[in-house]
Amino acid sequence: DRKYLYEPQTPVLAFSDDGMIKGLVPGFCGRATGLVRITGADAIGDESKRDWKAVAWRNEFVHGQFVVWTDRPARCLRTSVSPLVNANGERLPAESVSTRFVRYVVGHAKHKGEITQKEQLFGDCLDDATELDLPEHGYRPVWLTVHVSANAAPGTYRGILRVIANAKDIIEFPLEIKVGSRTLPPPSEWKTFVDFWQHPWAVARYHGVKPFSKLHYALMEEYLKTLAAVGQKTITATVVHHAWGQGNNYDCFGSMVEAIRRRDGSFVFDYSIFDQYVAFAKRCGLGPQIHCYTLAGFKSRHTDEETGEKLVAYNDQRAFWRIFLKDFESHVKAKGWLGDVYMALDESAPEVLKSAVDLLRAAAPGLKVAMAGERRPSEYDGVEVENFSEVLGHVTPEFIAEAHERRQKGYTTSYYICCGPGFPNTFLRSPLCESVWQGIYIAGTGLDGILRWAAFTWPRDPLFDGSFIHWPPGDTYLIYPGPRLSTRYEMLRDGFEICEKIRILRATGAMTPELEKLLDPSTYGRDQSFFAERTAAVTAAVDAIP
Amino acid sequence: DRKYLYEPQTPVLAFSDDGMIKGLVPGFCGRATGLVRITGADAIGDESKRDWKAVAWRNEFVHGQFVVWTDRPARCLRTSVSPLVNANGERLPAESVSTRFVRYVVGHAKHKGEITQKEQLFGDCLDDATELDLPEHGYRPVWLTVHVSANAAPGTYRGILRVIANAKDIIEFPLEIKVGSRTLPPPSEWKTFVDFWQHPWAVARYHGVKPFSKLHYALMEEYLKTLAAVGQKTITATVVHHAWGQGNNYDCFGSMVEAIRRRDGSFVFDYSIFDQYVAFAKRCGLGPQIHCYTLAGFKSRHTDEETGEKLVAYNDQRAFWRIFLKDFESHVKAKGWLGDVYMALDESAPEVLKSAVDLLRAAAPGLKVAMAGERRPSEYDGVEVENFSEVLGHVTPEFIAEAHERRQKGYTTSYYICCGPGFPNTFLRSPLCESVWQGIYIAGTGLDGILRWAAFTWPRDPLFDGSFIHWPPGDTYLIYPGPRLSTRYEMLRDGFEICEKIRILRATGAMTPELEKLLDPSTYGRDQSFFAERTAAVTAAVDAIP
Repeated sequence: DRKYLYEPQTPVLAFSDDGMIKGLVPGFCGRATGLVRITGADAIGDESKRDWKAVAWRNEFVHGQFVVWTDRPARCLRTSVSPLVNANGERLPAESVSTRFVRYVVGHAKHKGEITQKEQLFGDCLDDATELDLPEHGYRPVWLTVHVSANAAPGTYRGILRVIANAKDIIEFPLEIKVGSRTLPPPSEWKTFVDFWQHPWAVARYHGVKPFSKLHYALMEEYLKTLAAVGQKTITATVVHHAWGQGNNYDCFGSMVEAIRRRDGSFVFDYSIFDQYVAFAKRCGLGPQIHCYTLAGFKSRHTDEETGEKLVAYNDQRAFWRIFLKDFESHVKAKGWLGDVYMALDESAPEVLKSAVDLLRAAAPGLKVAMAGERRPSEYDGVEVENFSEVLGHVTPEFIAEAHERRQKGYTTSYYICCGPGFPNTFLRSPLCESVWQGIYIAGTGLDGILRWAAFTWPRDPLFDGSFIHWPPGDTYLIYPGPRLSTRYEMLRDGFEICEKIRILRATGAMTPELEKLLDPSTYGRDQSFFAERTAAVTAAVDAIP
Repeated sequence: DRKYLYEPQTPVLAFSDDGMIKGLVPGFCGRATGLVRITGADAIGDESKRDWKAVAWRNEFVHGQFVVWTDRPARCLRTSVSPLVNANGERLPAESVSTRFVRYVVGHAKHKGEITQKEQLFGDCLDDATELDLPEHGYRPVWLTVHVSANAAPGTYRGILRVIANAKDIIEFPLEIKVGSRTLPPPSEWKTFVDFWQHPWAVARYHGVKPFSKLHYALMEEYLKTLAAVGQKTITATVVHHAWGQGNNYDCFGSMVEAIRRRDGSFVFDYSIFDQYVAFAKRCGLGPQIHCYTLAGFKSRHTDEETGEKLVAYNDQRAFWRIFLKDFESHVKAKGWLGDVYMALDESAPEVLKSAVDLLRAAAPGLKVAMAGERRPSEYDGVEVENFSEVLGHVTPEFIAEAHERRQKGYTTSYYICCGPGFPNTFLRSPLCESVWQGIYIAGTGLDGILRWAAFTWPRDPLFDGSFIHWPPGDTYLIYPGPRLSTRYEMLRDGFEICEKIRILRATGAMTPELEKLLDPSTYGRDQSFFAERTAAVTAAVDAIP
């Protein structure tokens, strides 16, 4: 039973109400699709549409999608791509071009404590399998990625993608990519602030290794480099146990700092994991900001040296925090990280934030504050927050104006998406254009960037089920175990690339008024259809600029 | 919801029909149990029984078990063991003594395609958690292991195990271990033939790494060393794709040898994975035998160099096998492994076996044969099988007599347990004494050893559910991911230690007629209660010999 092995359900074409599969003809068929999710109900389509055409800057990633289907079982589905060659006979290097099968995962939501029976299959995971079998009535999307090298010669390159089944059944998809003369800088030089929170304990648990063991670091390296590849600017660190409790995580976050209360009542702090992890994350390309969770709640769990008991709460939490913050400030200063370290909170009430920040400023004035909240920074009386993120639904023209003022002070201001809004978002159910939209939105609003609470805060088995309690399926992660990238990750990168292009076009005076108008927040619509239309329009307008 | 995180269900005391928990009193309680499975129905018992006493040879592992329970939630359950000291003040080194919490896993069986609703919790996994919380009415067994060092001074050592909850609730268990002057040799010198099949692909899948990648080897090392620690004498290798198909495995076995059919029709074989894996397994302490699966069925899947198609069946399977076996023989000869390489089959009919072996002898006379079957070796006409294993239920006095004759020829003869018999066996539901019994049975019958088809042929999530389709839960593995050992693994080792002790006692003329009588197969009973009684009697008789 192969479905048990690979996917929760093998994707098959949907029967319509009359018990037929609409449009199904005998044999092995295929077509080019856009960059959209393919389901059993919409896989079959116009077979005459097989062409893929793309426009790219040098050093850009561009994607295409194709779907094949069959009425009878088809064996050993695989792909082969011919060299992409331009009119001068120059080729894009073979390693620039890759295909991945789209792997399906279940999504369902929990309502009032019960998992609803309604499950849906989402094609989201870009898998590393090189071969698959198709069952009777099976279909399978193939995701094409071309990473144009930074030194590719401008020009139009053509080639053919072949999708093969049963050794002899071959469908050919003509490919054409127009490479311009502009070059995207590497993600390390992108200006967008990207903050996708990391969860090392989820990686350790999923892969069955001890947190912060040699094997864990060997695994983490690939995950963190995947974030660096979209310009991730923060390292998610923890300084308390269970920063978010158990509520929103399958795996609790542990602490990278151990507080030990000595027999004489004094405290000593073990920073060895914190130091090692932060240095490691920096080597993987993350940073420079180090966000330390969490100042919220003044958690004061520590190890009692005398009894050996762990995780006991100190009787005077604020006293504990004054001691810790002072010590921590000295420590990060000695490491050369002062200025990059933010004590982080999320969604705290103004009075809670003020109380926490007042204590912080008094105890450790060299540490900064990062906060994700639901009102304008200026509405938090008497508090300066160096890195502030506003939930998307609360972004207003006033907030955007404040963000521009804050930039003058060297502060970072972003927006965030999480369990809401319903759209535009990056759930399994979200249209893929809404992932692209995020980058366009950053360019349009002029905010510094985006925060998303989970890059790989996996539920129990993210390759099988993207749900976690009442969060919309897929909300807790963008990257699958492996790491395997998701369609959402790739489309977010697409959006960040557009954002970076716009920054460069603006800086070089190459922007068109039409494009600027498309980016203007005052022209944004509120219907979900807006995001698809505008994303397409912006993409086309950017591609049209030579 | 912590149960979601750690175990399928948190073990709690069972309510009896009257809605009460029999024997429950307020507070944190505990008692010493034997080496038996503890359930919610039998955890509560005589609290006055707290002593643990053991007798050990030097270099032996001995175990004890204790259970604690509570009426109300208890926080931060942990253990502490005082030094074990003898009358001369000599101590067993601290690293000789360890405790592990027993972790629970679900077992259920599938009948006629449906998973039955009746699930049962089995305490089997010896976990590496250092602290746990107990919920209301929770209980938790603590497993004690003392590995007496080879150079420990004989004598009686005493100490105290403390089990602590809520920082201040402490239960003390007095420990006493009598160390004799005899010394067990290390497992590498044990004479028992142990063949627990390995499944590298299951390890790769569970841990989410690519088979035979650097990370995979780093993980495999601990698993293979765990097998070496019970005297494992074979390396399970594969030379064909899907040696057992999908039927009895969650993960198919891949092949360690790739056969490639060249454009000119000739075959070439890529042995790089095989060579690398076998050398690695040897470094981990496995071998000397290398069992190559499988000659059965003459599978002939290969890669076609011209079309690139993988896994195509060759039109003349026997011709393919003649080519392969000749090539393989030359290859293993060049590696210096000839004489250790067995072409392996399991449960083949006599005529199938003969046909396969005839072809093998003609093509590659230097390769040996390993077979697990259901009749006496002499009943396979015209076939010599150098390593033969007989299913336990078919072991007869005649088979045992043949085994002794075969030893004169340098052949290996063992018995095997798998999905049957119902008892004595090593399922999650099997009493632990039946794992110990296996070693006693080897000593009693004089067979060379034991074969078990699965050391870590894991189902989807063995830490949560030990079931796999219709096999009795636990049948597919003895070692949990981590690796974490199981109670069954530890008790099998106990039995192998007894077997090795008996070999030494016999060789040194120290055996007693009473013990020999207990070992005599003609005195074995058929009721399940026999295995508990006889295992206890043999253990006591061995312990009584100074």
